[in-house]
Amino acid sequence: MTPTVTLLTDFGTADGYAAEMKGVLLSRSPGCAIVDVTHDVPPQDVESARLALARYWRRFPPGTVHLVVVDPGVGSSRAALVVESDGRFLVGPDNGVLSPAFLAGSARAFALPVPPGASPTFHGRDVFAPAAAALANGSPPASLGSAYASPVVLRTREPQRAADGAVIGEVITIDRFGNAITNCLGLRGGTIEIGGEVLPMMRTYADAAPGALVALVGSTGLIELAVRDGSAAREHGIGRGTPVLFRPATR
Amino acid sequence: MTPTVTLLTDFGTADGYAAEMKGVLLSRSPGCAIVDVTHDVPPQDVESARLALARYWRRFPPGTVHLVVVDPGVGSSRAALVVESDGRFLVGPDNGVLSPAFLAGSARAFALPVPPGASPTFHGRDVFAPAAAALANGSPPASLGSAYASPVVLRTREPQRAADGAVIGEVITIDRFGNAITNCLGLRGGTIEIGGEVLPMMRTYADAAPGALVALVGSTGLIELAVRDGSAAREHGIGRGTPVLFRPATR
Amino acid sequence: MTPTVTLLTDFGTADGYAAEMKGVLLSRSPGCAIVDVTHDVPPQDVESARLALARYWRRFPPGTVHLVVVDPGVGSSRAALVVESDGRFLVGPDNGVLSPAFLAGSARAFALPVPPGASPTFHGRDVFAPAAAALANGSPPASLGSAYASPVVLRTREPQRAADGAVIGEVITIDRFGNAITNCLGLRGGTIEIGGEVLPMMRTYADAAPGALVALVGSTGLIELAVRDGSAAREHGIGRGTPVLFRPATR
Repeated sequence: MTPTVTLLTDFGTADGYAAEMKGVLLSRSPGCAIVDVTHDVPPQDVESARLALARYWRRFPPGTVHLVVVDPGVGSSRAALVVESDGRFLVGPDNGVLSPAFLAGSARAFALPVPPGASPTFHGRDVFAPAAAALANGSPPASLGSAYASPVVLRTREPQRAADGAVIGEVITIDRFGNAITNCLGLRGGTIEIGGEVLPMMRTYADAAPGALVALVGSTGLIELAVRDGSAAREHGIGRGTPVLFRPATR
Repeated sequence: MTPTVTLLTDFGTADGYAAEMKGVLLSRSPGCAIVDVTHDVPPQDVESARLALARYWRRFPPGTVHLVVVDPGVGSSRAALVVESDGRFLVGPDNGVLSPAFLAGSARAFALPVPPGASPTFHGRDVFAPAAAALANGSPPASLGSAYASPVVLRTREPQRAADGAVIGEVITIDRFGNAITNCLGLRGGTIEIGGEVLPMMRTYADAAPGALVALVGSTGLIELAVRDGSAAREHGIGRGTPVLFRPATR
Repeated sequence: MTPTVTLLTDFGTADGYAAEMKGVLLSRSPGCAIVDVTHDVPPQDVESARLALARYWRRFPPGTVHLVVVDPGVGSSRAALVVESDGRFLVGPDNGVLSPAFLAGSARAFALPVPPGASPTFHGRDVFAPAAAALANGSPPASLGSAYASPVVLRTREPQRAADGAVIGEVITIDRFGNAITNCLGLRGGTIEIGGEVLPMMRTYADAAPGALVALVGSTGLIELAVRDGSAAREHGIGRGTPVLFRPATR
């Protein structure tokens, strides 16, 4: 079976940094299948990368190696990690970006040694890609580093429950469509309040009139706000942290 | 032979939606080769996606599966399609984006059932990617859905022929270079009129002086306007719908 | 062994031009592995492409085919080249973009014939991709064209040495992070002067305070200027050509 290595970085592609990593992968694990997740994470935005990783890492088959390099602390004392979780492997810096793998229950982490010749500004090429290639070649994670007990784990803030049963949450990210994704697990029915507007929960974007703000349960189960054929974020001034109030339907 | 699945979406890559689809593809069709066409179609721009698909779908070998998800009507009553045409397979929404496959003559379409658990906001992941994986695994299209007789077919507007033999056309799209592509099939020789300027047809960009507007026959056979080392669209205010008049050379 | 073909273009992806090239590659070399380097080179920016290529081309294993299409002179009399250098193959226009392969010592170049039916505006599809596919299939470069003695070779300007031993250099490119990369080979220790500021050489980004300008040796060995959690280029008005003065540590 061809091993798969996915790549998520904030490098963009034009400078050739991501290509350097791909060259290292193919040199050390000839024939591995490289799958681009993205190189367009906003520079240094660990939070965006963490939320994206949460979406995709378990959609790939067991044995997949996920290489995740958003690494403002490159070259500092932050650890370089290999993680095994739920049958997948993850490689990246210990800055919280790999949190989804740690929240899955059975994760084991190992700290990678940094070889003396590694560039202190590019562990993606000199530390993480070689480790990913070794995993793709079948090396057990424990053979690549030493057990690491306390990785940085970031969690999305939990919504609060008000006395009357309403759920007090907030927008946690904006996607390319300008859809605002909240931290409230959605239910069919009920209403959501944002910026003084109260919206009924709908089923899909097309249930709203073009240009209208619509609330619905998105594809990860979280409530999101969207504008049909438009951008909820831009047209309604919604951003990370904008508060929302979800009132489930009364039974 | 490794089956190839190409992906065209308007999802961008940073949010992880395209990666979710890739995970589904590799989980259901292990070892399939995923080829990114683009995830940078402007959000909801079915027209751009249709024109791009027209360019590339038959350049790939027979047996290729083209997954095309620009889908403003996701979750509504619009059908979800599998199409077989000229030996290639296409998967996507019935909103006209797959039109190039229907204009090829022998296309057959099938409507996919939407499984009860599918997210009404993400058929790319829950309906289209599973169908593409099944096709990559060799399932015949007819086994995936029911015959579908009247798909939405969009056509580029045909240019008109003036009494004096001139061709009255318009700009249909602008590419990344700012080149303006028209709906006029090109011939060597003749002139094109746009915004009051009359330009002789040239052979290639380098035949013009840097900064000059140039008209030529582009790589799909259509006349396009370009600025050497610049952007025809930006520097000459040309956009979709800008009228042009092509006068073929007199013999 | 699956042959690998990498792609660098300035085409973007949304228009479908890069996809057309991929279709040609897979039609002519079924099963070849296509690796995207980038399609986001600024339009016509041969210099950016050349610097990116320098970073990655030898990171890939011998036998890799690097397809490089930034080609403002497409269709003109500029030659279309296949190059063999250090065990890798490169395909692209003779405009200097392939220079890194020629500076490696043992490069041999061959000029490709342009088939009569080739579009004069898209040699990427009709000349370069077919040649790359042939190389991927094992055709020797000499079988694809005629020996070509004097390719265009561009070099990064060398820094000058001042009488007092200081190195007079300049910024040669800005990366996605806004880091400014200079033409000065770095050494640990010493100081760099830019825009009136004198900065000590640091080891990595995280050695600076957030927001502070920092100088360090980047991952290709060249000195670069960065702002931790920011953009050196934007915040300090640094661009291509900005002069720098490097004073190595005195021993």
